[in-house]
Amino acid sequence: MRILGIDPGIAIVGFGLIETDGAQQRMLQYGAVTTEAGLPLAKRLLQIGNDMEELIGQCAPEVIAIEELFFNNNITTGIAVAHGRGVILYSAEKCGVPLFEYTPSQVKQAVVGYGKAEKRQVMDMTKRLLRLKAVPKPDDAADALAVALCHARSATSLLQRSNLAAKQTI
Amino acid sequence: MRILGIDPGIAIVGFGLIETDGAQQRMLQYGAVTTEAGLPLAKRLLQIGNDMEELIGQCAPEVIAIEELFFNNNITTGIAVAHGRGVILYSAEKCGVPLFEYTPSQVKQAVVGYGKAEKRQVMDMTKRLLRLKAVPKPDDAADALAVALCHARSATSLLQRSNLAAKQTI
Repeated sequence: MRILGIDPGIAIVGFGLIETDGAQQRMLQYGAVTTEAGLPLAKRLLQIGNDMEELIGQCAPEVIAIEELFFNNNITTGIAVAHGRGVILYSAEKCGVPLFEYTPSQVKQAVVGYGKAEKRQVMDMTKRLLRLKAVPKPDDAADALAVALCHARSATSLLQRSNLAAKQTI
Repeated sequence: MRILGIDPGIAIVGFGLIETDGAQQRMLQYGAVTTEAGLPLAKRLLQIGNDMEELIGQCAPEVIAIEELFFNNNITTGIAVAHGRGVILYSAEKCGVPLFEYTPSQVKQAVVGYGKAEKRQVMDMTKRLLRLKAVPKPDDAADALAVALCHARSATSLLQRSNLAAKQTI
C-alpha cells in the first residue's frame, strides 16, 4: 500500500510517500511544496491546491494521511495554516483518495511508542524505521513521513488485531 | 460594478450579489451554500469549492468581497471555518476574480458608520441601503450583502476622495 503523508502549512507543506507491506515500510519520495511569504493568501492557496493535485497525480497514493491541527499560541499562524489545510483536504477529496487524520500524539504513539515523545525522537525513529541515512529535510517532510508511518503502523496493528480476532473466532 | 459578498463558513456560506453605480447599490441575488453536519470535513470542503465555482460562474462578479475571520471563543468552530474560508479564497483566485477582505469592524463602519455597531443595526442598514422589504434570511446571506455593501461604499468613498484630490490640484 502506498501512503502519502502530509504535514499541512501555508508557507511549507511537507509530503512523504511510503510503501508498506504490512510488516515493513520503505520511503519512496519526500519533499515540500512552498509558497512565497509576500504573495496574497488567495494566491498561495491556489498554488497549494494546484501543487497538491499534481503531487497526488504523480504519487498515486492509495491513502493520504494528514496531521490534525495542533493549535499553539500563535492564533494568526494557526488561522493561516487552517486555510492551507482546508485546501489540502479539498484537493485530496477532489482526487478521490481516502483520507485519514491523525493528531500529533497519535503520530508520536505510533512512531515512538509514546504519545508525549519529543519532536527529535519522532524524527530519529522515522529515520530508523525507514532505514534512511539521515533525518529528511526540511522538518516538514520528516513530519509528513512520520504521519504516513503512523497510518501504516496503525493500519497494521488494526489488521493484526482483526486477524487475531478472526483466529479466535475460528 | 457587480460585487459578490461572501460570509465564510463550513455549515453555511452566505452570499449576496449587488450592483453599484458608485452612488447607489441594488441587490441582485442572495442566498447560502450549505453542507451537512454529518459529512466528513473533506467532503464538505469539496462541496463548498464546487458550489463556489458554480456560484461565481453564474453571478459573474467583477469583484468578490469577503469577511476576515473574527476569532471568537470557540477555537474548534474557528478552525473549521478557516478551513472553509481557505477553499473559498482558493475558488475565487481560481476563477480569476479580484478579491478584497474586510474586517467585521470595517463592514460596520462602512454600512452603519460606526465600527462597533450591533449586528442588528448592520442588518437593518443593509435592508435600508438596498431598499429591501425585510432583512434577508439566513443571517449569513444578510452578512454577505453587508460585506458587498462595504466594498461598494469603501470604493465609492475612495473614488470621491480621489476626485476631490483631483479637483484640488486643478
